[in-house]
Amino acid sequence: MREVTIAIDAMGGDHGPHVTVKAALNIIQREAGVNIVLVGLEHAITAELKALRADAGARLRVRHASEVVSMDEPPAMALRSKKDSSMRVTADLVKRGEADAGVSAGNTGALMAISRFVLKTLPGIDRPAIASTLPSHNGKTYMLDLGANVDCSPEHLHQFGIMGAALASVTEQKERPSVGLLNIGEEVIKGNDAVKQAAELLRASALNFYGNVEGDDIYKGTVDVVVCDGFVGNVALKTSEGLAKLIAEELRREFKKNLFTRLAGLIALPVIRAFKRKMDPRRFNGASLLGLNGIIIKSHGSADIYAFEQAILRAIDEVRGGLLRRIAEHVGSHAESADETEPATGEMA
Amino acid sequence: MREVTIAIDAMGGDHGPHVTVKAALNIIQREAGVNIVLVGLEHAITAELKALRADAGARLRVRHASEVVSMDEPPAMALRSKKDSSMRVTADLVKRGEADAGVSAGNTGALMAISRFVLKTLPGIDRPAIASTLPSHNGKTYMLDLGANVDCSPEHLHQFGIMGAALASVTEQKERPSVGLLNIGEEVIKGNDAVKQAAELLRASALNFYGNVEGDDIYKGTVDVVVCDGFVGNVALKTSEGLAKLIAEELRREFKKNLFTRLAGLIALPVIRAFKRKMDPRRFNGASLLGLNGIIIKSHGSADIYAFEQAILRAIDEVRGGLLRRIAEHVGSHAESADETEPATGEMA
Repeated sequence: MREVTIAIDAMGGDHGPHVTVKAALNIIQREAGVNIVLVGLEHAITAELKALRADAGARLRVRHASEVVSMDEPPAMALRSKKDSSMRVTADLVKRGEADAGVSAGNTGALMAISRFVLKTLPGIDRPAIASTLPSHNGKTYMLDLGANVDCSPEHLHQFGIMGAALASVTEQKERPSVGLLNIGEEVIKGNDAVKQAAELLRASALNFYGNVEGDDIYKGTVDVVVCDGFVGNVALKTSEGLAKLIAEELRREFKKNLFTRLAGLIALPVIRAFKRKMDPRRFNGASLLGLNGIIIKSHGSADIYAFEQAILRAIDEVRGGLLRRIAEHVGSHAESADETEPATGEMA
Repeated sequence: MREVTIAIDAMGGDHGPHVTVKAALNIIQREAGVNIVLVGLEHAITAELKALRADAGARLRVRHASEVVSMDEPPAMALRSKKDSSMRVTADLVKRGEADAGVSAGNTGALMAISRFVLKTLPGIDRPAIASTLPSHNGKTYMLDLGANVDCSPEHLHQFGIMGAALASVTEQKERPSVGLLNIGEEVIKGNDAVKQAAELLRASALNFYGNVEGDDIYKGTVDVVVCDGFVGNVALKTSEGLAKLIAEELRREFKKNLFTRLAGLIALPVIRAFKRKMDPRRFNGASLLGLNGIIIKSHGSADIYAFEQAILRAIDEVRGGLLRRIAEHVGSHAESADETEPATGEMA
């Protein structure tokens, strides 16, 4: 298996090195052929390693970076004034080829702004998008954009389809993942103009385009990849988080009502636990900043060690699967497919 | 208590008279001072009444309508070519004051088009919106628009806030319900232009405006009313339906795994049942077509008898609470508040 090096912004997230260092150690121990560079305040990382009775070495190196981007720092400020932040140095390592991918649990806006500035976008891609996976009946659904782009043109949505399909093909080993366009169905007016035009572009492309899907199709697993603008995607994601939390709390409350329900809860505990494992959002941690000329994974800020490991594993998968090459191929094959249709139009003109 | 008459499109929904007639009978029996007019094919309604060993009478009348709008009929067609449909006659009865409100489980698009044509919008309201309630930690959250308007101007979103607050004040007896504007938070760009401008309008209005909220706030119960455009609202609603279904199925699957888990499920059954009752989407059935000069409630097409009763009860609540007058007051008080701020601007000019 190909040797890969992952750069980790050790200072990012709500817990910083306390989570990132241990997660990195766990990955090094379990995954053959993976090297990690921990980027951040050297003393903080070393102190954490010491507390864990571990040492840096050939497979786990420490790269000092003197600044830290805070969780609520405006992206433009983080980009302009902190040129030696752990986030920036992580992106720089990817840019220079010293790492194959970067992982950060830091501030999403800053990570996107810095990554875009340092790495630029891939040819044929106008805007990067945030992609993640959600659980479904069949396994999982990829969804993008989840908040990087509020207003999207039909062409942007089309590019999200290309990138999402490339991602799913690489990490799910599916030859031609199906792509659906998020729309509204039976209601009064079907979709806005951008979505209607995006559907035409996707239909004419080389992608395995399923057609329009609705919100419930995300969890039904109707398609492998759901495409939408970042406003809608972000609302869908946050709404899901809110509903899952409400359901969990209401269920807990019912089981805590009285002695009998507590007893029933105790007996049902192994079942409830198995269920929780299956639906555990930590398993799905790690969003891809797709469309950059480099692989960057954003972990949830509140990720614990297990969740952060999943984000690192996602980075490894994308590197080993050759994600960037696959996106370039998809962009290329779309361009070809567009070329094929052009002569006809030319003759008509 | 005020005597009210509800017109029911008896033919609407997936089950037609089989559901609507029994639900009407149940309401008549339980609710004092409520009269119902069942609108639709007389022979079908009478046959259903006979099967239920019930008779029409002073409180439950039958009004023949010779046509039926099908569930997948294009709204424009239903409006133009079926002038004696049960849906149209229901709206006509409301228009002529023979009924205080109308309820239909039929095709949403057709119901909106017909209601808007027959009843028109209230003064100061440009577009009707679909409003419904969702469960939250504190009880329920009102949300609109859920799919009537795909592209919304800031002024439309502002009007949705006015209508939603009026609805919540009438049905929840809250003097000044809080209103939140659905937006995306920490991500890269905060909201699109329409949402930003709508926030300014809402902040300047007489409403109890909380500010921006995110998807998870819907279920947290952060505000009484969540305002968004119909595309986003519809996606959030359908996504929630999909997730709730997935969670229910996965939980069922875990309990059915083996003999032990089945036993555990049996013991936990009363708790699971209490939980399901609490989260039962049927309890929240009945969306208000707000902004019309008349009260129209849309029931879910697949509603069963219990769910359809909830939609009828919602209509009764809105009539007794004086919803239309309340919306008019809200529109008026907003206009006043805008007037108050005008002199200052005038002086500056």
